[in-house]
Amino acid sequence: MTDWGLLDPGAADTTGTDDDAVLAAMVEVERALLRAWGSELDEFLEPQADALDAAALERPVLVEGVVRDAVPVVALVPVLRAQLDAAGLASDRLHLGATSQDVVDTALMLVARDALRASRTALVTVGARLAALADAERRAFRIARSVARHAEASTFGILAAGWLDGVSSAIEAIDALTFPVQFGGAVGTGTAADAAADRPGAGEAVRAELASRLGLADPRRSWHAERTPVLAVAAASSSVIAALGRFAGDVTLLSREELGEVRLADGGGSSAMPHKRNPVDAVALTAAAVEAPGLLQVVVSAGVAGDERPAGRWHAEWMPLRRLVRLARSASSAAARLVEGLEFDVDRAGRTLAGAGPAGERPDRGVLAAASDRIVDRAVARFTSVSEGGPRP
Amino acid sequence: MTDWGLLDPGAADTTGTDDDAVLAAMVEVERALLRAWGSELDEFLEPQADALDAAALERPVLVEGVVRDAVPVVALVPVLRAQLDAAGLASDRLHLGATSQDVVDTALMLVARDALRASRTALVTVGARLAALADAERRAFRIARSVARHAEASTFGILAAGWLDGVSSAIEAIDALTFPVQFGGAVGTGTAADAAADRPGAGEAVRAELASRLGLADPRRSWHAERTPVLAVAAASSSVIAALGRFAGDVTLLSREELGEVRLADGGGSSAMPHKRNPVDAVALTAAAVEAPGLLQVVVSAGVAGDERPAGRWHAEWMPLRRLVRLARSASSAAARLVEGLEFDVDRAGRTLAGAGPAGERPDRGVLAAASDRIVDRAVARFTSVSEGGPRP
Amino acid sequence: MTDWGLLDPGAADTTGTDDDAVLAAMVEVERALLRAWGSELDEFLEPQADALDAAALERPVLVEGVVRDAVPVVALVPVLRAQLDAAGLASDRLHLGATSQDVVDTALMLVARDALRASRTALVTVGARLAALADAERRAFRIARSVARHAEASTFGILAAGWLDGVSSAIEAIDALTFPVQFGGAVGTGTAADAAADRPGAGEAVRAELASRLGLADPRRSWHAERTPVLAVAAASSSVIAALGRFAGDVTLLSREELGEVRLADGGGSSAMPHKRNPVDAVALTAAAVEAPGLLQVVVSAGVAGDERPAGRWHAEWMPLRRLVRLARSASSAAARLVEGLEFDVDRAGRTLAGAGPAGERPDRGVLAAASDRIVDRAVARFTSVSEGGPRP
Amino acid sequence: MTDWGLLDPGAADTTGTDDDAVLAAMVEVERALLRAWGSELDEFLEPQADALDAAALERPVLVEGVVRDAVPVVALVPVLRAQLDAAGLASDRLHLGATSQDVVDTALMLVARDALRASRTALVTVGARLAALADAERRAFRIARSVARHAEASTFGILAAGWLDGVSSAIEAIDALTFPVQFGGAVGTGTAADAAADRPGAGEAVRAELASRLGLADPRRSWHAERTPVLAVAAASSSVIAALGRFAGDVTLLSREELGEVRLADGGGSSAMPHKRNPVDAVALTAAAVEAPGLLQVVVSAGVAGDERPAGRWHAEWMPLRRLVRLARSASSAAARLVEGLEFDVDRAGRTLAGAGPAGERPDRGVLAAASDRIVDRAVARFTSVSEGGPRP
Repeated sequence: MTDWGLLDPGAADTTGTDDDAVLAAMVEVERALLRAWGSELDEFLEPQADALDAAALERPVLVEGVVRDAVPVVALVPVLRAQLDAAGLASDRLHLGATSQDVVDTALMLVARDALRASRTALVTVGARLAALADAERRAFRIARSVARHAEASTFGILAAGWLDGVSSAIEAIDALTFPVQFGGAVGTGTAADAAADRPGAGEAVRAELASRLGLADPRRSWHAERTPVLAVAAASSSVIAALGRFAGDVTLLSREELGEVRLADGGGSSAMPHKRNPVDAVALTAAAVEAPGLLQVVVSAGVAGDERPAGRWHAEWMPLRRLVRLARSASSAAARLVEGLEFDVDRAGRTLAGAGPAGERPDRGVLAAASDRIVDRAVARFTSVSEGGPRP
Repeated sequence: MTDWGLLDPGAADTTGTDDDAVLAAMVEVERALLRAWGSELDEFLEPQADALDAAALERPVLVEGVVRDAVPVVALVPVLRAQLDAAGLASDRLHLGATSQDVVDTALMLVARDALRASRTALVTVGARLAALADAERRAFRIARSVARHAEASTFGILAAGWLDGVSSAIEAIDALTFPVQFGGAVGTGTAADAAADRPGAGEAVRAELASRLGLADPRRSWHAERTPVLAVAAASSSVIAALGRFAGDVTLLSREELGEVRLADGGGSSAMPHKRNPVDAVALTAAAVEAPGLLQVVVSAGVAGDERPAGRWHAEWMPLRRLVRLARSASSAAARLVEGLEFDVDRAGRTLAGAGPAGERPDRGVLAAASDRIVDRAVARFTSVSEGGPRP
Repeated sequence: MTDWGLLDPGAADTTGTDDDAVLAAMVEVERALLRAWGSELDEFLEPQADALDAAALERPVLVEGVVRDAVPVVALVPVLRAQLDAAGLASDRLHLGATSQDVVDTALMLVARDALRASRTALVTVGARLAALADAERRAFRIARSVARHAEASTFGILAAGWLDGVSSAIEAIDALTFPVQFGGAVGTGTAADAAADRPGAGEAVRAELASRLGLADPRRSWHAERTPVLAVAAASSSVIAALGRFAGDVTLLSREELGEVRLADGGGSSAMPHKRNPVDAVALTAAAVEAPGLLQVVVSAGVAGDERPAGRWHAEWMPLRRLVRLARSASSAAARLVEGLEFDVDRAGRTLAGAGPAGERPDRGVLAAASDRIVDRAVARFTSVSEGGPRP
Repeated sequence: MTDWGLLDPGAADTTGTDDDAVLAAMVEVERALLRAWGSELDEFLEPQADALDAAALERPVLVEGVVRDAVPVVALVPVLRAQLDAAGLASDRLHLGATSQDVVDTALMLVARDALRASRTALVTVGARLAALADAERRAFRIARSVARHAEASTFGILAAGWLDGVSSAIEAIDALTFPVQFGGAVGTGTAADAAADRPGAGEAVRAELASRLGLADPRRSWHAERTPVLAVAAASSSVIAALGRFAGDVTLLSREELGEVRLADGGGSSAMPHKRNPVDAVALTAAAVEAPGLLQVVVSAGVAGDERPAGRWHAEWMPLRRLVRLARSASSAAARLVEGLEFDVDRAGRTLAGAGPAGERPDRGVLAAASDRIVDRAVARFTSVSEGGPRP
């Protein structure tokens, strides 16, 4: 009944994004919501919050709930309530004022935030290595190629700087995101919370407190059927994957035996050719880059919601959204491994350039060297600036 | 490290398509290959075939292999070999002449075939019920709608016949498929098999025997980088899901309180509104229909392979292909449940029609009744003919 | 107000698929419908049919109609009626029993059929050349590549046979299609036709006659909201483009200066590098292959229609469907040019193979030569068989 | 040979995005580049800049160029040069230091910027009307719906505020964009410009001046193969279309005869039902929303570029990118028309709510009214703040 990774080299790293992690995030949301209600109602609900335990939950009960209710939260709430009952604690504050969508959306934002933070960390590692490579090889000339043909001379420094620009752009895309909490009750009006507290505006206060406790943004609105925040997360994840996929595609080509400008720490074996080694990290990145645009498409299609909650489009969003952030994280890890084992073969590139004929004679090497300096310095400075910034809360 | 269904109402039924099932199919391929070699070499390899045991394999070893090799088979072969060794059996015939792609492609064809057969069975159930509904309500008038407005009168029989046409088309799409075996060795030439048997054409003989034993088609070629068979499976699965998604969308709309022409056995609960019931099967079908086109897109993109085996595109194909056949199967099951609980409210529809003004006055009821008879009869006859056919081997 | 090709190298050949051609097809449908009514009513309507003139229609009137009505036919019918009036002919039989969707769907099927027939013709040309290449170079050894690395030896014959298999598959995909007429009136019941003829079944007779006159299939039903026929056309077009895109990708790589196994008649110039020549036909094919999967996705998404005619999904289908058949036709033309200028550099490949080390030493050359013979013969025989078949009516 | 709008209700408004406009933008880029070189070289090039005339160019020459070179600029430069020659002006500064990609990318950024500015203006109109509706109907109760079922009571004010949130998000998405100039020469190093000026850094100075003259951003780098800026434009366009598509979907449903909560100024006619009126603006918006995700998918796939310029992926990007900004602009215009004719039927909604049973009884009306006030005020304040901001340069 489970997928455990047999077919998934493109998303080998599922840390923080597997179903257990999403479930833990859902329980974390309920826990933070209890505490937020504690503040609002001036009640001591810490024991309840502490008593919730995602690890102890029976998965089959939840899976049955997904089948029965098309959403896991309807089954989740009573089993959490049972945990409180078993601990002799009052459970009436659990899930108070909330609807399933509040829990699922907020939990997926937590998962996305953490996955993209981890992605960012790996991207900084990737960028640092590319910056060093660009710096070191700013005078190493090579032939640049356009439309699959030798075009004119460039440098390894400029090549690495171009990849680095992609990494900087990917980090910027992550840093531009906000991860908003969702809390609006059945149809997004927050009235159940207001009524429960017998105070107008209580729902908004709880939402703000919930956001604060989870480290998410308070959007000051319900966005149940207004999926722009989700589209933004999906688009940023796609940008990360595309930037890394381009890098992987370039090094895959350049590491072919006939080009040989790049050496990779190929490691993957073959079942038919025992001594063959394959560029598995580049393969994983390319696989992710082939898959991600289709996932983004589904998220955007699903985002054209309807009513106060749509009958299927919302449900269609979870899997591709989760997979996009998983791929972004896994791809960033793969890129960090890939770049660690990456070396330029400057001599080989020099020989190719020397044999490239008229294409290789342009431009004047002094002009090119000066340009390479500027381009590398700019890319490194941009990366330094971008990486020293940081994600939004 | 696993996904066990927490976020997946659209594919609740993973029977035969989860990772365990795919692994079992891979082992089944190796088993059948042993037997095919037994025929070719005139050796008794039944004990070896019998000794292979998918259930006993350590999943973590295989997952590590996926990460290390970007394909599960490289790690699979030695653990299967160890099973033979442990049983005191010679293991040199295992995986003979095969490459990883032979095992993965063939296993996924097995999984696809079985999933789509199960889908077909459920579709026949769906169609039979729709045929009965169409037959029963051929004279029950209702307003037809175009561009979200009342258009002119039609009948429930014609409505159900239209859904039935979609089911018939879906069955035809499945029945038009062939599921070819893959067997060509490292680069698709079959030479390793020829050499192993010391006989030109041995590889082709083994491929034919392998196909026969697995109940797959013998394509008489290797299609390692020519992915048309995969595209066909993906497109047929998409057709199934689209036909059912359209049906689900119609009944979702028609079952809204304001229209009320259709009653569903709504069952799903709500965490915020205890007495609310949701149309969960229709939700699952709609979610599948929103997701499937993006999966098809990825399969087609990945199908633009390169070299004798591409560095990432092939790998990107597995997950969306498997998911498409899973969705097709799961959606068919959901549709069978949905149609079982489906009822027409003929009186309510009659009142709506009566109040529809000029739109409802056309056409003449006698003309419409006669047309309804013909349309219903045609759709039922088509379904009968289609459903009595059957899938290709 | 028009797009005339400035940005469209991937679909340079718009013969038969541009807006003028689609308009001509719409008028052809109205003309054939007049004649079909002539048969049904035993009236002489040839003068009316002859008097309709697509070329003389004012395009701006139709464009205004598209904006006003979201469909071009509402504006088309009165201007055609005016043509009949101007010729002193009775116009009351024009568009009789038809709705806009009948005209648009049928016209697009005509356009698709003709585009894919032209595609098929070009594919046969491509295949014949590939068959000759495969036959000629069945003993020319080269290194095969998997996962971007040298794998083991193969032949140019096998390489060309693999591309040829793709072409054969593409032709088969086209030949499996039917192109059905659409004729059902406002909500697909055909009652307007029955009433006009005052005869039950008149609508079905007119549909059959219409199909016969246009050379389309009679589906014996209305498929207004059951879009499987459209999905099939879109999927087949995608298969054509994917097969050619794979071929183009391979030759693009193999024609790079460093590999040099393939020579192309590069022709495209550069605005910055006057002496550079680019592989423009391969570029066009790759561009088409990158775009097509997204178009297919839209057609499948749009195919999840609703009501008797949906409020937007049907309208969203026209442009991507038309573009897919346009790309299929244009890509086939580009492939014919590409293959005409394609040459293998057998010597260069031989040197690469000699330098490939252990990877190039396998398999035994005698075994490989025998395998190459079989593979080439099979692929050529399949192509011969497939190409001698032919499309359905 | 052209598409003039016959099949395109979803993109009826092609102002500023048709091929003539793109060509004009290309010429504008060459003109601004001449002036930028005038500054760099201290030459008086105004006569040359003034002499370039897009309107006078022969389109067939350019189309032939697209077919021959797979890019229009190679043919464009000589015909522009001929314009200068004909005017007796030196033409050696034309296109100096530039490559085709500089012109195409920069021109498409101009087109995108202007289309999205126009979109923004229309969105502000849409938002202002929605804000007024939300404000006016903050106390008009209605039943909210989730999963296609009555859920609990809400207000028209909250409904309109939700749509307004989407509009505000769409404006924010546009305002977050930058539209960078592209200028790097053949392989993105800028050396041709440096050499032409005989000054290191001249290329950078020209790029900055070019950006300034065109009102675009200076990215301080070449982004030839690093397509993040393009992905951002495509993603923002998709967000606009999705937000409007959701609005259109809601009003399409709510304006159905059976719900009747919303009245639209339906205008589109029918060829089969003369008195029927269809919601054509909502249809256009829905069609755009169905198509856009697939276009975004293509842009992201194409963005995984390769080399210093890829052999097909770059070329595949132009059409879907242009179409996305065209759809965004056209959809915004359609939304402005749609919202202008939009009215709430408060009485009808009240009757539906009264008949909704237990679902309609919750929540307490006083609590709901207070919540509605807060939600409407927040949404209006957000829109006011967002709309008073403004796009980046």
